[in-house]
Amino acid sequence: MRTALCERLGVEFPLFAFSHCRDVVAAVTNAGGFGVLGAIAYTPEQLDTELTWIDERVNGRPYGVDVLVPGKLDASALDRDAHLTDFIPERHRDFVTHLLSKYGVSTPPQPVAASADEFGRRVTAAGATGLIDVALKHPIGLIASALGPPPPEMVAAARQAGIPVAALVGTVEHAHRQVAAGADLIVAQGTEAGGHTGEIATMVLVPQVVDAVAPVPVLAAGGIASGRQMAAAMALGAEGVWCGSVWLTTEEAETAPAVKRKLLAASSLDTVRSRSRTGKPARQLKSAWTEEWDSGQESPGPLGMPLQMLVAEAAMARVGLAAERGEPGAVELANYFVGQVVGQLDQVKPAREVVYEMVSEFADAVERLSSLSQ
Amino acid sequence: MRTALCERLGVEFPLFAFSHCRDVVAAVTNAGGFGVLGAIAYTPEQLDTELTWIDERVNGRPYGVDVLVPGKLDASALDRDAHLTDFIPERHRDFVTHLLSKYGVSTPPQPVAASADEFGRRVTAAGATGLIDVALKHPIGLIASALGPPPPEMVAAARQAGIPVAALVGTVEHAHRQVAAGADLIVAQGTEAGGHTGEIATMVLVPQVVDAVAPVPVLAAGGIASGRQMAAAMALGAEGVWCGSVWLTTEEAETAPAVKRKLLAASSLDTVRSRSRTGKPARQLKSAWTEEWDSGQESPGPLGMPLQMLVAEAAMARVGLAAERGEPGAVELANYFVGQVVGQLDQVKPAREVVYEMVSEFADAVERLSSLSQ
Repeated sequence: MRTALCERLGVEFPLFAFSHCRDVVAAVTNAGGFGVLGAIAYTPEQLDTELTWIDERVNGRPYGVDVLVPGKLDASALDRDAHLTDFIPERHRDFVTHLLSKYGVSTPPQPVAASADEFGRRVTAAGATGLIDVALKHPIGLIASALGPPPPEMVAAARQAGIPVAALVGTVEHAHRQVAAGADLIVAQGTEAGGHTGEIATMVLVPQVVDAVAPVPVLAAGGIASGRQMAAAMALGAEGVWCGSVWLTTEEAETAPAVKRKLLAASSLDTVRSRSRTGKPARQLKSAWTEEWDSGQESPGPLGMPLQMLVAEAAMARVGLAAERGEPGAVELANYFVGQVVGQLDQVKPAREVVYEMVSEFADAVERLSSLSQ
Repeated sequence: MRTALCERLGVEFPLFAFSHCRDVVAAVTNAGGFGVLGAIAYTPEQLDTELTWIDERVNGRPYGVDVLVPGKLDASALDRDAHLTDFIPERHRDFVTHLLSKYGVSTPPQPVAASADEFGRRVTAAGATGLIDVALKHPIGLIASALGPPPPEMVAAARQAGIPVAALVGTVEHAHRQVAAGADLIVAQGTEAGGHTGEIATMVLVPQVVDAVAPVPVLAAGGIASGRQMAAAMALGAEGVWCGSVWLTTEEAETAPAVKRKLLAASSLDTVRSRSRTGKPARQLKSAWTEEWDSGQESPGPLGMPLQMLVAEAAMARVGLAAERGEPGAVELANYFVGQVVGQLDQVKPAREVVYEMVSEFADAVERLSSLSQ
């Protein structure tokens, strides 16, 4: 495929793969797409290790790194001397204890890889910029910023290194704000997407954003996991697509087996936009976790970001382990960020095969459209 | 455009226009599309008059008629001897009185064109079939059934007359059920659509429905008001598109002026799926009406269909008149069914021009896609 964006970024297909798994990132990049590693899962040291691993496998082909910097954060996160866990109210701790006991999760609290303070502060401008500083020591080809506009220091560092900055948006207003903050590439993400997402559907959002920010190139995200959907997104005016959910059921993905089974079985009605995992609305698999937080009688309601992230991650570490042991209540609670395309995912495939199938189906869809138009 | 569906239905473009205004239906049909009149706005006698008016203007070109037959109805609607208004609880009457007074609507109750019983029962199988019996005396080219599967007597009458039946769906399961009930054409409608709609976005729903019901042809609905969106829908596998919102701001539409102004000013964030107008989730303009019913402290919660329709229509008749008189509270309450594409509608145009612009932009989008694919 020959698009201006492909030439600029040095890829064969304008197919961006967001994943927290280095294996997926390397596989998609090696197949001619553009892998983007979600850095928020890692400490700066871990990120360095992951990127070195990727560097050794992609042979100079381009890949990127994604961070999360919300415009609004719970004030606790900005107080550098505070212990974030001190800000989690007793009611919320009690609710989680009650929930795990109600669902019979017997697995004890798990040791965590990073301190809660370090983990919670990865989503501050300072934390995200720290991750990007590490990434810039590697031959990355893109920095992506989800939620709020990229912090000025991040844009400055990227500019100096000659690396384009992409930013995710859910409204036209956000798109204008991101371009003003220095974004070189906009990812317009519809409500059907997994993870943090707005209310406007991809079909409506993409053309509006394309027209609003032209000539800044736009990628479409949300509802895209096949070549027909890729063709549709590009018919709307996008120069490429940004996919996340479709990689969760690939062979390379480190998705927890219990979650992978739920993803493969789920229909497109089985997702919900919920604040129960991060404190901000994020689409994810409906589960006892989302139901109890969102409509349970005893729910104290989710906290802000990053406090709810800390609450959820600690609980989900236990739930995940218990689900692997086959504890049925834990399987009910287990969930993960995924878009409405989950209804299409019913088979485990290598990531490379997903790329090739999408590109081939894209060509078929375009050929079919062309024949109608004659 | 040459598609199998165009040939079968005798149209130039597979562009279906759902409207309650006969002028829009005739204009789209005369421009080479396929107008579909929403019959639920009329008594059988009125419908006969409207269809005769259309017949005199379209010179034999094809148009259709749409009815609404939900799978589940409030039991009151099925008791032929009951007065439907007797089933509206005191709390709901009081809430409407309180609402109109809170927003300073001084316009008195309005005489209604039809009895509440007749109006409420248009959405029963018997009521809808009565409307279709009238329609079948005209040279219609399509019967469409929204919400539940078409009643067997309606399918039988259509079959005998050789008229195809279309059915709207929001999930794959509904699509299977509609085909089993005898639908010849499926309209897969995404959550971004105006009116009664489900939760799954068009981008995700359409390919799933296309694959599920093949070789039954599928139209895409929801999020489609431009040629790029039409091309996207057809890239997903749809054989055509079904549009409603885009006609509300055409010259021909009889949309109340106060509502038209709100539609032209609205962004794609200004709609909500609410049960406050019909008793079933329907996307519409956010307004004081939807806010008060959906989250007002004193709200008794909406009734089922058709009782909530009666409550809302009577109130909205007063609100509409008061809004025309410039009463500001009435303007706050006024709303109408519309999809997220409302953010694209910022100009009043003749319906014919909308058709030609969509077809022309469709061709441009396909050409652009083809050039990328080479």
